[in-house]
Amino acid sequence: MSEAQVSLKHLFRVFTKPEHKDSKLAQIEQHLSDNIMDFLSQHVVTKKTSLEEIEKDFSLASVPESPEFVSTHAESLLEKLVAHSVNTYSPTFIGHMTSALPYFHLPLAKLLVGLNQNLVKIETSKAFTPLERQVLGMMHNLIYDEPEAFYTKHLHSARHALGAFCSGGTIANITALWVARNKLLGPQPGFSGVAKAGLAAAYRHYDINNLGVICSKRGHYSLSKAVDALGLGREQLLTLPCPAQTLRPEDALKAGLEYQQQGNKVLAIVGIGGTTETGHVDPLDELADVAKELGCWFHVDAAWGGATLFSSTNRTKLKGVHRADSVTMDAHKQMYVPMGAGMAIFRNPEDANSVRHHAQYILREGSKDLGATTLEGSRNGMAMMVYSTLHILGRRGYELIIDQNIEKAQTFAAMIQRHDMFMLTTAPTLSLLTYRVCPTSVQNAFDVATPAQCRQLNQNLDRLVVAVQKAQREAGKSFVSRTRLECAELGGQAITVFRVVLANPLTTEQDLKNILEEQTIIARKMRLWKELDDNAREILSHSG
Amino acid sequence: MSEAQVSLKHLFRVFTKPEHKDSKLAQIEQHLSDNIMDFLSQHVVTKKTSLEEIEKDFSLASVPESPEFVSTHAESLLEKLVAHSVNTYSPTFIGHMTSALPYFHLPLAKLLVGLNQNLVKIETSKAFTPLERQVLGMMHNLIYDEPEAFYTKHLHSARHALGAFCSGGTIANITALWVARNKLLGPQPGFSGVAKAGLAAAYRHYDINNLGVICSKRGHYSLSKAVDALGLGREQLLTLPCPAQTLRPEDALKAGLEYQQQGNKVLAIVGIGGTTETGHVDPLDELADVAKELGCWFHVDAAWGGATLFSSTNRTKLKGVHRADSVTMDAHKQMYVPMGAGMAIFRNPEDANSVRHHAQYILREGSKDLGATTLEGSRNGMAMMVYSTLHILGRRGYELIIDQNIEKAQTFAAMIQRHDMFMLTTAPTLSLLTYRVCPTSVQNAFDVATPAQCRQLNQNLDRLVVAVQKAQREAGKSFVSRTRLECAELGGQAITVFRVVLANPLTTEQDLKNILEEQTIIARKMRLWKELDDNAREILSHSG
Repeated sequence: MSEAQVSLKHLFRVFTKPEHKDSKLAQIEQHLSDNIMDFLSQHVVTKKTSLEEIEKDFSLASVPESPEFVSTHAESLLEKLVAHSVNTYSPTFIGHMTSALPYFHLPLAKLLVGLNQNLVKIETSKAFTPLERQVLGMMHNLIYDEPEAFYTKHLHSARHALGAFCSGGTIANITALWVARNKLLGPQPGFSGVAKAGLAAAYRHYDINNLGVICSKRGHYSLSKAVDALGLGREQLLTLPCPAQTLRPEDALKAGLEYQQQGNKVLAIVGIGGTTETGHVDPLDELADVAKELGCWFHVDAAWGGATLFSSTNRTKLKGVHRADSVTMDAHKQMYVPMGAGMAIFRNPEDANSVRHHAQYILREGSKDLGATTLEGSRNGMAMMVYSTLHILGRRGYELIIDQNIEKAQTFAAMIQRHDMFMLTTAPTLSLLTYRVCPTSVQNAFDVATPAQCRQLNQNLDRLVVAVQKAQREAGKSFVSRTRLECAELGGQAITVFRVVLANPLTTEQDLKNILEEQTIIARKMRLWKELDDNAREILSHSG
Repeated sequence: MSEAQVSLKHLFRVFTKPEHKDSKLAQIEQHLSDNIMDFLSQHVVTKKTSLEEIEKDFSLASVPESPEFVSTHAESLLEKLVAHSVNTYSPTFIGHMTSALPYFHLPLAKLLVGLNQNLVKIETSKAFTPLERQVLGMMHNLIYDEPEAFYTKHLHSARHALGAFCSGGTIANITALWVARNKLLGPQPGFSGVAKAGLAAAYRHYDINNLGVICSKRGHYSLSKAVDALGLGREQLLTLPCPAQTLRPEDALKAGLEYQQQGNKVLAIVGIGGTTETGHVDPLDELADVAKELGCWFHVDAAWGGATLFSSTNRTKLKGVHRADSVTMDAHKQMYVPMGAGMAIFRNPEDANSVRHHAQYILREGSKDLGATTLEGSRNGMAMMVYSTLHILGRRGYELIIDQNIEKAQTFAAMIQRHDMFMLTTAPTLSLLTYRVCPTSVQNAFDVATPAQCRQLNQNLDRLVVAVQKAQREAGKSFVSRTRLECAELGGQAITVFRVVLANPLTTEQDLKNILEEQTIIARKMRLWKELDDNAREILSHSG
């Protein structure tokens, strides 16, 4: 932009004059509105570009000195950013928890920015405050199903909170444990409570050596962040082995009792309502019993699986969730809302008072300002997206989608089991599953191999899975993710597996067939594959 | 929606079929794009509706059972939500830190949702990761102005972080103090560090009684949340009086030394780069000296004022900010980005390693995943909005706007001082100021009144300010906020004042004149005004 154009007058135009209908940005907008899949497949480059290559476009650390025309900038966004972003709408990208979203989110996103409310307080959000409270109430109702009078009393009460809306599941988990910690170590005669006096003083007052949290090894990494940030320490996160992918209640009880016998106190047991890696659900009802026996808080991390409660048939998979003191849910996962919509729901509407905070000019005593009981302060109005999706899909709509996701996962699991190239490593409880390349020859070899040979085979299979996953990703047609996990069926040994999340309503059975087909072709071309096959045949021949 | 329509086929349409061009939602979109001010003034109801009245529209706690047509829902959004939201674009709504935004954010918001990236890891964000790192680098450069080689080395380094992007200033402040805490109480021979071992063990190991944070009474409420959540305890936030609105370095030093003599350790001094209430800037350079003397972390909360650094003339107001260990900046404030864009910037790119976290399937060792050093996990791509605004406005564009905001505040201050109905209570350092209704008769009466009479006058003025502020807000034409603060000029007594934030580029001098005019008319009609005037005249007559 030339010197003369850098004027207040020019700048005012970006505030006062809308983008021209023929401008680049308006074209982008139109394309998105007309056909988002087409926009993405046209602009997102499928060819693998190395991160180092992409970084070159973002390597200057100085703030650009002169203004840039919006149209010039829009061109550059397409070329540098959109081209090298991830196509989360693609029905064959089934390795993530983000999927295609309903179209109405595009105009709603504009409305959200156009309104630009700040939900920390009523003064800057007005109707958004009761709206967010209603959304939290609906989630509370979905989980706890309290009588109507309960909601009439608490939904809009200044002294209660049915939950805390936040940017994501991590903040939700931190918030839940923060509330639990402050409630457990609350004020008593002669002690002002942990919120005021701090953790060390609280341990002294309550005569606690350490405060711990129990979960399975599949617990989300946010729990580790939580115990760090909240001052408990990462060593106090007791992550118990779970070869069958779920936390065994007897293990949790044993660990909890031992921990407490050492002068410690269990703050919370965290049950998982759909692990990130395999979608397994911990035995929530039994864990609620354990929490009761240990006298601790029971939190359920249902960031992924919470939406299963919309389904009358599948909701039983979360049996016992209503006994949780707090539940995390991410609307940006299986509730088909854009990124940035986490929620911590509290069974007892008084519990959030343990973190309640007032200030002079804001969050005044008796006000209904949401910021008084959330970890975050200024926040945007993402609750509107949840509200709208709840209304437009309705419970029945969600039910249809959730049920279909689970069925699709079962179909895919059956497809894998029938296939002579693959081995299902974890069957789907919800809509996640894991599997690996493992040809029949190797599967047969496992039956007769020595433990050392098994280890060797597994190591080679691990390498093959990594190689196939990378090659498929780089080919750009489809994407499954990968992870490492212990499998009960394999004697608890950790193996590398493909991880699949079937959340995109647009993914068809044919897409899934194609993905296996592509993996088969990729694998068969690899030297590693040949070696494995030879190796397996050799083991088999010797055993004969 | 009828029974028959609740089908998967219908639901698929919301994922696959864009909104019709004539649909209600498309109309809303078009109106926003064509003229956002017109959209808002047409749909946001200015007439005061009580919160209780609004709550009635959001009173059901059950999830809607059946799907709703998008168009039906859009109508209902306009009527229930938009009508009762806050018009943040209005040039006469000068009581908030949210203002009109550039038009290009509307299409960008759509692009953001269309791409729906998750910035926790590269796998789900790709180019957004280097983009966010670059934005953080630009802010680092703006504050610390390190040589180019510094940025070449650190901008995209997997082992470094120049900052943490987050949902807002509160999380930024918490993150900064978390990093500071973990660095101070780091691992040593025989001690695994506070992150792993927890706070109580760290206090024992380091022989610390308590860990405290020093700031002025104008410190943001998020600091109180931070010391609570991080386990220090709210009582360890030493909020020092600041009758002149800024923290006196000698007070901070004295308080710090006394605190440390009692077996405590000062974790951090927090200097404010633009207080929320009056826009004052603490003497950052001197506070950096104090922090050095106390051997503690120096954090600057420049959520509001950080953008002043874009201005070559006004940036001196933040003199010393480059000596801070960490700085909070909110792009959704004076950087004209939609709500939800906070940043904590770290001078030392190694510091964030004190909270670094790795997991098996994500944030792997050596990866550049952003989630490894942020408090949040899954996050949206708001950094794109900051990136685009930095490019489209450029440093010079920001400079023009920031300078103009400050000039406008000075003009308004002069206007208030000339006016015989008002009294300026705090002059603008940045673009905030406070004032109150205080007619000449009362101002004269103060000169001769007894302390008891002064208190009485102030109490009545407080009531008048509250009444005028409420009446003006309810009239719906304009909005200034109000707060309570101690004023050096008034012997440190706390008084109620109007608070004005001049951040909207569309606010004209005439708007400001009209606001004073409206307040004058409102005040003069009030019985309270008459009483005050009579009271003042009586005091004056007796003193004669």
